[in-house]
Amino acid sequence: MPGEGISVALIGTGFMGRAHSHAYRNVASMFPECPRPRLKLICGRDRGRAEALAARFGWEEVSTSWEEAVRHAGVDLVDVSVPGALHAPVSIAAARAGKHVLCEKPLANSLEEARAMLAAVRQAGVRHMVQFNYRRVPAVALARQMLDEGQLGTLYHYRARYLQEWGVHPQVRAPWKLDKEQAGSGALGDLGSHMIDLCRYLAGEIREVTGMTETFVKERQATGGSATVRVTVDDAALFLARLDNGALASFETTRLAPGRKNHNFFEINGSRGSLYFDLERLNELNFYSLDDPPGRRGFRNLLATAPQHPYAASWWPDGHLLGWEHSHTHAIRDFLVAIGQGQLPRPNFEDGVKCQAVLDAVARSVASRRWEAVDG
Amino acid sequence: MPGEGISVALIGTGFMGRAHSHAYRNVASMFPECPRPRLKLICGRDRGRAEALAARFGWEEVSTSWEEAVRHAGVDLVDVSVPGALHAPVSIAAARAGKHVLCEKPLANSLEEARAMLAAVRQAGVRHMVQFNYRRVPAVALARQMLDEGQLGTLYHYRARYLQEWGVHPQVRAPWKLDKEQAGSGALGDLGSHMIDLCRYLAGEIREVTGMTETFVKERQATGGSATVRVTVDDAALFLARLDNGALASFETTRLAPGRKNHNFFEINGSRGSLYFDLERLNELNFYSLDDPPGRRGFRNLLATAPQHPYAASWWPDGHLLGWEHSHTHAIRDFLVAIGQGQLPRPNFEDGVKCQAVLDAVARSVASRRWEAVDG
Amino acid sequence: MPGEGISVALIGTGFMGRAHSHAYRNVASMFPECPRPRLKLICGRDRGRAEALAARFGWEEVSTSWEEAVRHAGVDLVDVSVPGALHAPVSIAAARAGKHVLCEKPLANSLEEARAMLAAVRQAGVRHMVQFNYRRVPAVALARQMLDEGQLGTLYHYRARYLQEWGVHPQVRAPWKLDKEQAGSGALGDLGSHMIDLCRYLAGEIREVTGMTETFVKERQATGGSATVRVTVDDAALFLARLDNGALASFETTRLAPGRKNHNFFEINGSRGSLYFDLERLNELNFYSLDDPPGRRGFRNLLATAPQHPYAASWWPDGHLLGWEHSHTHAIRDFLVAIGQGQLPRPNFEDGVKCQAVLDAVARSVASRRWEAVDG
Amino acid sequence: MPGEGISVALIGTGFMGRAHSHAYRNVASMFPECPRPRLKLICGRDRGRAEALAARFGWEEVSTSWEEAVRHAGVDLVDVSVPGALHAPVSIAAARAGKHVLCEKPLANSLEEARAMLAAVRQAGVRHMVQFNYRRVPAVALARQMLDEGQLGTLYHYRARYLQEWGVHPQVRAPWKLDKEQAGSGALGDLGSHMIDLCRYLAGEIREVTGMTETFVKERQATGGSATVRVTVDDAALFLARLDNGALASFETTRLAPGRKNHNFFEINGSRGSLYFDLERLNELNFYSLDDPPGRRGFRNLLATAPQHPYAASWWPDGHLLGWEHSHTHAIRDFLVAIGQGQLPRPNFEDGVKCQAVLDAVARSVASRRWEAVDG
Repeated sequence: MPGEGISVALIGTGFMGRAHSHAYRNVASMFPECPRPRLKLICGRDRGRAEALAARFGWEEVSTSWEEAVRHAGVDLVDVSVPGALHAPVSIAAARAGKHVLCEKPLANSLEEARAMLAAVRQAGVRHMVQFNYRRVPAVALARQMLDEGQLGTLYHYRARYLQEWGVHPQVRAPWKLDKEQAGSGALGDLGSHMIDLCRYLAGEIREVTGMTETFVKERQATGGSATVRVTVDDAALFLARLDNGALASFETTRLAPGRKNHNFFEINGSRGSLYFDLERLNELNFYSLDDPPGRRGFRNLLATAPQHPYAASWWPDGHLLGWEHSHTHAIRDFLVAIGQGQLPRPNFEDGVKCQAVLDAVARSVASRRWEAVDG
Repeated sequence: MPGEGISVALIGTGFMGRAHSHAYRNVASMFPECPRPRLKLICGRDRGRAEALAARFGWEEVSTSWEEAVRHAGVDLVDVSVPGALHAPVSIAAARAGKHVLCEKPLANSLEEARAMLAAVRQAGVRHMVQFNYRRVPAVALARQMLDEGQLGTLYHYRARYLQEWGVHPQVRAPWKLDKEQAGSGALGDLGSHMIDLCRYLAGEIREVTGMTETFVKERQATGGSATVRVTVDDAALFLARLDNGALASFETTRLAPGRKNHNFFEINGSRGSLYFDLERLNELNFYSLDDPPGRRGFRNLLATAPQHPYAASWWPDGHLLGWEHSHTHAIRDFLVAIGQGQLPRPNFEDGVKCQAVLDAVARSVASRRWEAVDG
Repeated sequence: MPGEGISVALIGTGFMGRAHSHAYRNVASMFPECPRPRLKLICGRDRGRAEALAARFGWEEVSTSWEEAVRHAGVDLVDVSVPGALHAPVSIAAARAGKHVLCEKPLANSLEEARAMLAAVRQAGVRHMVQFNYRRVPAVALARQMLDEGQLGTLYHYRARYLQEWGVHPQVRAPWKLDKEQAGSGALGDLGSHMIDLCRYLAGEIREVTGMTETFVKERQATGGSATVRVTVDDAALFLARLDNGALASFETTRLAPGRKNHNFFEINGSRGSLYFDLERLNELNFYSLDDPPGRRGFRNLLATAPQHPYAASWWPDGHLLGWEHSHTHAIRDFLVAIGQGQLPRPNFEDGVKCQAVLDAVARSVASRRWEAVDG
Repeated sequence: MPGEGISVALIGTGFMGRAHSHAYRNVASMFPECPRPRLKLICGRDRGRAEALAARFGWEEVSTSWEEAVRHAGVDLVDVSVPGALHAPVSIAAARAGKHVLCEKPLANSLEEARAMLAAVRQAGVRHMVQFNYRRVPAVALARQMLDEGQLGTLYHYRARYLQEWGVHPQVRAPWKLDKEQAGSGALGDLGSHMIDLCRYLAGEIREVTGMTETFVKERQATGGSATVRVTVDDAALFLARLDNGALASFETTRLAPGRKNHNFFEINGSRGSLYFDLERLNELNFYSLDDPPGRRGFRNLLATAPQHPYAASWWPDGHLLGWEHSHTHAIRDFLVAIGQGQLPRPNFEDGVKCQAVLDAVARSVASRRWEAVDG
């Protein structure tokens, strides 16, 4: 029996607040081995919005002060689902209050902040995780398994793209994402951090980078209004990298790719085979093996819904697709299980710092127009 | 305000019992306009199993007697998620007790049973629905919208396949599906009923059919044991049909298609364009329009996750995929809303009867080796 | 050494006349082991058109009389690429003149004609082939190899579709195809014969059928004019079949499928795996094997351009695609090699008769509205 | 009437010699408007090999001296299909002899050589072309048409990959490609030049680059023997670029991508839509338009075989695929037509120089580890 559960304070009522609420509500239903989370408190600046989410998902209490929420005596775990500028203050305050911390990605708006956050959770001795949820898509976790089995041999190439379309539309849904003060950077931090984390998860540490960024659309309309917002972040970022293991890597992200709604793609080439994945078909992993006989080789489309696949057996029979939201449920399941077992999950704040170090090196490279080493 | 909600008794603790539990648990979180269901009671022959589901999903009470459950004073709606042989007795008893009835598909094991069920719900004046959940996949509902808009012109062809693989494996997960007494038929009723319902939903009523069935694997092992089960139902069924509107239709289902995990596919050809869909990529609808200029025509892959698409705006931003389970949530949402508004939803038991009439005509055709009219 | 070559008289200057001309012109360049054909004579009713093709492809002589052409002393092989109504008279005359005969598909407009043609070539002792060119698409020939290796185990299902779009456009390019006198039938004979031949090639003989046909568009405009043509053939045909080996088969063809330009598709399901193919991606064969380990199974996309694949080594390195026309080159290569070796190739007129017998049974079934046995 | 034709001397008997032979043999058959080439002379160091190709394709004469061949009085056009180190000497000698020159890609092994070649053809006043054949794939030429129509609006991104597999196999088929003396560079020049030319053709001139290269496999076996070959060229190259029009571009090529047989891919994102293409499905162009109504947008798969598409009307009816070789036939068709009309085709040696300047800048960037301007 999972015991009395883990009490959660969710800070944030936006898209991620809603997605995490859904995950907390369902995780123990589908994963009975998981400590049952108690939806203790939801916190947002707009009380009406917080109350609405509380009513919908069953949060017991509502707060409009994150400073109070993170210190709430009845709370074990603080979930930080707010714009980037608040990640550090909220997470650090939560850690100091002795709470476990789950923080949305990227960990921070700067490498310094990220390091301070890591120091804080370490000093407090609490558990911590960064919500790089795409590690928990079953097809992605399957890729990790196959790499562990050695199915790809020596790695030569890692190739990542994260392309979205929404930037081409005049009205934008999350204006804070266009403001450097709040978001730190644009596509680079928002989507690039996902690419970097998956590369570190699947292929290895990034040693050095060279990159470029651009802001094509310099003014935008805020959602639902005629107000013009000045854009202070990039809407596209590209960089090349060398991994510690010698593999070459390429990364490209943009918010200006018509038709690519959520194209988080990776491809890995090794001496024995290849893998590729696209978040727009997230139940599928494509695998090519040189171990197949000549003339019988081809990319194999694996539908990652079989009982042998990560997380899948807890849901439905083979062939019944999962969706995007399940990656959040799985990540939260793994964090709760880790807390229950007194373990530190991955990716934790140390991973968050390492990701931030790569983002930092890319930004330095954009300025210097040279290769820059990732600060280890 | 949705009011005090609708109290549900779920009869069945198998795969569908679990899927429906998940849907009831989530429907009002994601669809605030929906009357909130109260998870009043779960009923199954195996008390331990029912109690486990109750604990996981929050059902308030547990019963091992469907006869008692359907008469429970605190219940408004009975959900019939049991093997086919019990659909009629449970549904009829529920209707006579004045409960609204949601029944899994196919409605019954025979046309007579289905008619008796329709008579019962009509006489009782309760609301009723058949859980042909695939109507509520957003991409499928989008197809219906596009047909309503006339995008396909006059219909010429409806082409359906529902192929699964599991029959090639020696061990089977749901032995009752192999027993004619419990299941009525095999692939024909189980998967064929989905094909028939989607055809009726998208293309029109079926007038006459000619078909064939086969049982390739005549003995099987029950799950987890060495016991041999004699198979008394078909594992494959094919039939051709003429629709009332003159279109030609073909249907094929099997449990013996390696690689096809849940290939519920349809294609519609009309005088202005075509549509096709595959449940293994359920977020996608493919559309070809002759209204596009010559040389610029091609199948357009629509990712049905945009705010303009059915149900999608209640979930996540564009490009964030939904899964199989969402079709159940949507169906239950629509039933609850219909009850709240005093409306009769579709597909209701009348649709269930019409589907059963087609299954019946196919079975007659298999026996007579001729075309058979569908009993109107 | 290929020797002095085989002199060819090509009867027909339409689409197929052009495609065969191209194949004769190239076959020995790419397949040096093949006897070099001599492009002796091209024959067509329209002298200007025949002369134009002669000039373009290098035919030495031009004739407007097939009766003379088939008796030409300098000719070894007569290629019958004319509308169906002429297949029998031209082929029989050619055989009686002692010429080898290559006849376009379907072999004839009726089973009686087909049988008379077979009798004629047998009596004359000449070599004969029917140009069911799709057997010679490398990916299709690869499918045959893999079946020979037993990769699919016991066959359960053969599923064929041949869908085209052109019938939805008011103007048609080959009006003779709409005239029963000239074409015998519509989509059934034209496209259905290809499906039947591939089924016989890949899966086995067809024992019995039940089918339906329809003529949706009853009047059409001739190409380039305003004249109205009455349509006397079907534009769609569907039938189910039982094979001698017990497998079930389905066939569907239409000229009214918007978006399906040349969708000649088959899928085969067996106890060990599956294969599928689509002529619109003719370099690819999709293969699923239950011999792969659980959790590592998926359809494998084989690009049939590797040196191990049929015909491919004679063209370009792996990854360099072939086109539709290559299937004709390969078929003609095999016929010329067979003639050089004194062998009878497949599919020959006996195959043509067997295909015709299935078409005949379908037509009888459409009339009787019952299952009909194929006349063996 | 095209007149008496253009006499060709083909220098080279390897893969490209064979591909060009096939194209010369067929071009006037399929494109009657094209001046008929006369296959005058084939030249290779290995007389037996040259004679074999002459016999197969109909070359009238054979030579083993390119110096003599390029001065042959009966020759109008010299086709340079030899390893890169010979491009300059052969092309320059041919120009000085007053012959038109078709040169395989990349134009040269260095920018200096390329410039000398351009100077030579200009001074001689002959016509010249570089065989960047992929501009003449119908789907690629269609992309150019659609860009000309403004379908993509302002360009933001150009994304290119050219991935092959053969480098992972121990034996290699063209050892000269591994030798810097003969090939100039590895994947960078061989495949990278195709990417650069397509970018220039479709998106615009490249202003500056930053890149990296690697030689993962440093020793290899020569084909058919046990001899070890030291590899003196890269087997992978990646670079980022800024175009003159402000768009960002990324390029990646490797010979070490298992499963990617000939994956020459590009994607273009603009303010109104996107296009993408993959040479492994070369008949298809994918198009997404923001002009489609919201909720009805998706990538449209155009099968570029319709009469409206470039080159397609000269081949077969819609839906009948073309292959890789057709791109060579089309390029040679355009060169012959240009010669006949006294025009200079594209891409000519000036394009070859511009491509070489980009390759040169990439190589400089690899050495300097900085962004480098393309030498204009």
